[in-house]
Amino acid sequence: MSRGLFITFEGPEGSGKSTQTRLLSERLTALGHEVIATCEPGGDHLARDIRQILLHSKGDVAPEAELLLFLAARAQHVRKVIVPATERGAIVLCDRYADSSIAYQGYARGLDIPTLRRLNDFATGGLTPDLTLLLDIPVELGLERQQDKNRFEAESVSFHTRVREGFLELAGLEPARWVVVDATGTLVEVAAKVDEVVQQWIGSRNPVVL
Amino acid sequence: MSRGLFITFEGPEGSGKSTQTRLLSERLTALGHEVIATCEPGGDHLARDIRQILLHSKGDVAPEAELLLFLAARAQHVRKVIVPATERGAIVLCDRYADSSIAYQGYARGLDIPTLRRLNDFATGGLTPDLTLLLDIPVELGLERQQDKNRFEAESVSFHTRVREGFLELAGLEPARWVVVDATGTLVEVAAKVDEVVQQWIGSRNPVVL
Repeated sequence: MSRGLFITFEGPEGSGKSTQTRLLSERLTALGHEVIATCEPGGDHLARDIRQILLHSKGDVAPEAELLLFLAARAQHVRKVIVPATERGAIVLCDRYADSSIAYQGYARGLDIPTLRRLNDFATGGLTPDLTLLLDIPVELGLERQQDKNRFEAESVSFHTRVREGFLELAGLEPARWVVVDATGTLVEVAAKVDEVVQQWIGSRNPVVL
Repeated sequence: MSRGLFITFEGPEGSGKSTQTRLLSERLTALGHEVIATCEPGGDHLARDIRQILLHSKGDVAPEAELLLFLAARAQHVRKVIVPATERGAIVLCDRYADSSIAYQGYARGLDIPTLRRLNDFATGGLTPDLTLLLDIPVELGLERQQDKNRFEAESVSFHTRVREGFLELAGLEPARWVVVDATGTLVEVAAKVDEVVQQWIGSRNPVVL
């Protein structure tokens, strides 16, 4: 069986990643593909328990501890969900992945980025997405759109600005993997752009798989 | 104020680490020292939440995820509990620390030991114990003595044998930091040996601190 695809959505808070993941999943499923739509931190029992700690912990969390918790959830997610699905030929769509650790814990919290990359490599076993969609939105607009408030959304505007700038820099460093999508439009407008990017990408890369 | 001391207890299941940590704490407290007796994974709200996941998770846990959870708890523990305490001159006694990751995830589960050391360094910020007491006990006797059953105690005898051998090898590699204590005797006998070791060590190393 041919190997599937691994597509990630990245972007600041309120950029519509979870909605666009769901919409793309519906479209690809309607086209007859097996699609696994998942998110980080999440994917199975362990990752969901870690997610609860990460998003809702009341006390002070050391940046290194925060990062290691995300990495623990990621290590489990990769091995128990993502790799088994792509190995059987499914398309995996993931709302956030390793790049979020570089943007949030690196660019925004100031942890050393080469160290973060090595830690990500350990957690992911080297698994890199085939395609990453950066849903880009100005920080104020994103925070205004976001409804569920968690520990990260409570950070300052300057924190979220560093996150956004980090994502844009990462996209610039690996243009073959990243596509930046303007996420300021309506849900339907953004979904149309995402579809266009994914179609083009599939057409140019690996027409056999789809 | 003079810097305190950081003493860790290591050893296989059922070797009496938590009891000996408590007894040594009582003795040192009676001598007038500020003593913080703590354990891994643990130490504060975050580490206790992680401990719950680690010891009682029902499903399958990837070895890399397990390790990263221990490291997350450790990163928090070092920064929020251990370092603040030793900086104000306290004696910190810790039931398990970074060496347990090398013994359990490295020697017993087979993760790469140099990688584990680098990950430990990130989590601990390089903090190494001043003294490590290895409470050594044959595996069968330890498992027989252990009463609370958790996910680790349910592992095979060969797993626990690799843990024990790992600890003994680690002790051999760094004889200036480790002291191996025979933990097969009664609680009182082992406590007497621990006291003797700690007294000797304090006397030979840094009489000014105590």
